[in-house]
Amino acid sequence: MLLKSYKSNAFKEPLVSSGKKSTELIANWQTLQRIFLQPESEASRTALFKYMEQILFGLNDFLNEHVGITEEASLLDLSDRFKNSRISKNPAKKLADVIKVLIEDIAPHAVNVSSPYFIGHMTSAIPFFMVHLQTIVAALNQNLVKLETSKVASVLERQVLAKIHRLIYDYSDAFYDHHIQRPESTLGTFVEDGTLANLTALWVARNSFFKPGNGFAGVEKEGMAAAYKTFGIDRCVILVSQLGHHSLQKSGGVLGIGNGNILSIDVDHTNRMDIKKLLAAIKSIKADPRKTKILAVVGIAGTTETGTVDPLEEIAEICAENRIHFHVDAAWGGPTLLSEKYKSLLSGINLADSVTIDGHKQFYMPMGCGMVYFKDPAIMDNIAYYAAYVNRPGSVDLGIRSIVGSRAAMSLILGSALEIMGSMGYALLIDHGIETARSFADEIKRRPLFELVTAPELNILTYRIFPYDIKKELNSANLKKKKELNNKLSYINITVQRLQREAGKSFVSRTTLNKTANGNKVVLRTVIMNPMTNIDIIREILDEQEKIYYNQFGNSGT
Amino acid sequence: MLLKSYKSNAFKEPLVSSGKKSTELIANWQTLQRIFLQPESEASRTALFKYMEQILFGLNDFLNEHVGITEEASLLDLSDRFKNSRISKNPAKKLADVIKVLIEDIAPHAVNVSSPYFIGHMTSAIPFFMVHLQTIVAALNQNLVKLETSKVASVLERQVLAKIHRLIYDYSDAFYDHHIQRPESTLGTFVEDGTLANLTALWVARNSFFKPGNGFAGVEKEGMAAAYKTFGIDRCVILVSQLGHHSLQKSGGVLGIGNGNILSIDVDHTNRMDIKKLLAAIKSIKADPRKTKILAVVGIAGTTETGTVDPLEEIAEICAENRIHFHVDAAWGGPTLLSEKYKSLLSGINLADSVTIDGHKQFYMPMGCGMVYFKDPAIMDNIAYYAAYVNRPGSVDLGIRSIVGSRAAMSLILGSALEIMGSMGYALLIDHGIETARSFADEIKRRPLFELVTAPELNILTYRIFPYDIKKELNSANLKKKKELNNKLSYINITVQRLQREAGKSFVSRTTLNKTANGNKVVLRTVIMNPMTNIDIIREILDEQEKIYYNQFGNSGT
Repeated sequence: MLLKSYKSNAFKEPLVSSGKKSTELIANWQTLQRIFLQPESEASRTALFKYMEQILFGLNDFLNEHVGITEEASLLDLSDRFKNSRISKNPAKKLADVIKVLIEDIAPHAVNVSSPYFIGHMTSAIPFFMVHLQTIVAALNQNLVKLETSKVASVLERQVLAKIHRLIYDYSDAFYDHHIQRPESTLGTFVEDGTLANLTALWVARNSFFKPGNGFAGVEKEGMAAAYKTFGIDRCVILVSQLGHHSLQKSGGVLGIGNGNILSIDVDHTNRMDIKKLLAAIKSIKADPRKTKILAVVGIAGTTETGTVDPLEEIAEICAENRIHFHVDAAWGGPTLLSEKYKSLLSGINLADSVTIDGHKQFYMPMGCGMVYFKDPAIMDNIAYYAAYVNRPGSVDLGIRSIVGSRAAMSLILGSALEIMGSMGYALLIDHGIETARSFADEIKRRPLFELVTAPELNILTYRIFPYDIKKELNSANLKKKKELNNKLSYINITVQRLQREAGKSFVSRTTLNKTANGNKVVLRTVIMNPMTNIDIIREILDEQEKIYYNQFGNSGT
Repeated sequence: MLLKSYKSNAFKEPLVSSGKKSTELIANWQTLQRIFLQPESEASRTALFKYMEQILFGLNDFLNEHVGITEEASLLDLSDRFKNSRISKNPAKKLADVIKVLIEDIAPHAVNVSSPYFIGHMTSAIPFFMVHLQTIVAALNQNLVKLETSKVASVLERQVLAKIHRLIYDYSDAFYDHHIQRPESTLGTFVEDGTLANLTALWVARNSFFKPGNGFAGVEKEGMAAAYKTFGIDRCVILVSQLGHHSLQKSGGVLGIGNGNILSIDVDHTNRMDIKKLLAAIKSIKADPRKTKILAVVGIAGTTETGTVDPLEEIAEICAENRIHFHVDAAWGGPTLLSEKYKSLLSGINLADSVTIDGHKQFYMPMGCGMVYFKDPAIMDNIAYYAAYVNRPGSVDLGIRSIVGSRAAMSLILGSALEIMGSMGYALLIDHGIETARSFADEIKRRPLFELVTAPELNILTYRIFPYDIKKELNSANLKKKKELNNKLSYINITVQRLQREAGKSFVSRTTLNKTANGNKVVLRTVIMNPMTNIDIIREILDEQEKIYYNQFGNSGT
């Protein structure tokens, strides 16, 4: 057995002898062998095993019991512990000790995002098996940039891409049979996160418009300034709801379009892109003496702040009429398609030219699983790159059409998760989130101290503390007084959110909705994705907010 | 104990009852609870445990015994197995069965990149503890985009960034004490891979030049065409050795510069950027009637194809004189700085304005650990983005200055690895790679069938099969005949590389070096980073190549 033989012989010649008799740890060739292949001793193996068992099956009990986002002061203390900027020459600690410190000392200072009281962000509990799958992916160490470092993982990834593509676009068996394993077809691609997925979609849209032809080598080769010149254009714009994620601005900046040309379209009273405003914007852009190309319109399926879904069908129709690339940012809302009950909330997503979905959000995967899908399996040819040492033309290499090169087989995790959960398993999670958010909204409405600001469409809602006396005063206030009262409201909400966070038991986030003539509206924002978050826990969180409010601001006006 | 209590109660109300008596798997609320929190039964836990033990401590014995990159035909067979594009409604398999299939059926069709016979790419064996660390990172599920989802992990990441920054730039204690935990300072950032690291560096360089001022809002806001207009520039270019990675072209394309404006500077006979050619290029660009801004010069520290290091000190001097951003792509070579013996090979890297290093290359980390570092801790302000719901100004949020948003705590793995290995531990690996590559080169020189094409400077070398009869013929051939013979040589090398790969025991890669007047030169390329790859294994690989050659092409001319 070849494998066995080299393992015993590879290290026969030590490059550095250990020499010293002290207990100081010394890096030498024998130690290195142990580090590479196996624990250094039976005792070390046992210790490691104990910790790994705890991590793999221990219900996260190594985490802080509560949410544990600390106050500023203790953040400073924490910072003081991590101020040594020198890499130690010899090993600083044995492996088992490093793991011990991680579990016993570092992990308790991490944020327990898996707590059902952590309802402030889109990062939450993940099923324990996701950790097992991530472990397998790390052990296999495949690199999806090319077939030669991934083989079956590339083939499997194409299958997973087709499954999600089908979830979105629902084309025929014949379509998928043709494209699923065809090297020239690209149904989508994995990237690190939603930002890079949006960037990829807009990169493709940009290049699809400024195509090579008539002596022009294309924008990818000649650059933006040359493209504008060739096409007789003064600027490009991309239209997106004012609630679009800031990664769209960032993409505009990176791509040389300019983030100032990512134009906000106002939302209506339901926080969805106002179609009249969209039409007016298109009309006014067309009338602009500057020649302006509308590169794309972006619809959001689950805005970061309010979880609302833009009217995708209507946007699609407008894009088709005006021949504009239609991108849907479904980083958050995409997996809602798995729920029979609620998938109609995303009606029209199948009309999009491109769709972003994040696996580490509502597919409940570990971090690092952004995805972008394209209706046309050939459109990614507009961003293809080849190289002699990798990604040669005609190969199955997935790195050819991708903004990133080397990357892990996250698709193997998603593919396995789909088998373990089934669409119905995911649907239970999606339905629970949406329905719990609705109960949450009802609970807010029942409590006089609170105002529901944006009702949940998916599983995100915003609300604020809005005491009765301020409400009353606002009714009869002049503009100056109104501003003053609004500032007071902001201060109250910022304070309560901060104090609750610092108490460390629960966490809701806050944001500023830019909606009123009287100034910005600071709101508390919650995301219900943890299946263990139930209405009892939500009541506890609201109780605590009430308590903090009355402690800090007295009980005037209730 | 709050944590314990919600765990037992959260799922008390099933949303979907299981109903059916059949053995079909059904997604219901109880199943979901088990899936989220713990294995469904003791038997399942035991089965999982067995597999996880094998993954964590089993010396990769679940992998294909050999390298296992298969021939085309079996790739087609493999593709046929992954053609179902439908997500099953109910769970397709139990968790333990999914893991079983992964380990027993999928893993054997993966590429065994950890084999010491796999010396063709920059993906290789990683120490077993890296898998443990990745498991912990997945279990903690921290999101580094913001402090509220990462806390200690953000603080720890800043420390790791400072350690690598110090390895490169070696500034004073005072410098690091000041910047290491200062929210306003950015010493570097983690991204998915070297491509995104290079893209980030050039994005920063672009924005640093086309800064806001005099009524111009900056290139990030106004876009490339407006920037060129404002600065009176016709085009931007970036200069890079002809052996630069194609991610630099891709970055030029993405950023709106145009990949045609990433200009190749020829290398000298040692495969390093030819300084005379660089100076000539700068001179000719300055004389060009088109107003051209040289945005950056990129030096490579470890080219992908030959592992050579550009003359960094000389390039730095030229950049300083001409006030050009100097970027070093040390994705491969960076960790050579950990070797006392060989770090001088990278002399001048401390003069770079920005440096790319990949953790998943010579830091032997799992996939997904690109990094980019900057000399000036304020320069990343040129790409900062803020949002109301996250990354507010003045916060510690690491997502503010980053091309990516949500991402995993890969820094926790690197930080731990530095403690476990010490710089000397890494130095042993680096030294072994370089010295084994040198022995490899000597072995090639000893064998008459082969020609060493590029000698190893770091741990990469290229060579080719160059039979004596062809060598002799070439000496007296006319141009036409020379081309013919070169094509024959290419065909021989392509064939031998392919047949060796398909035999599945060993793997070297191939590339085409564009160096001769007589056409392209196809070479075999090897990367020595696996500490278990020794000269005996290398001899076996060469023996096999000789055998394949003689089988296929006879033994004429030797």
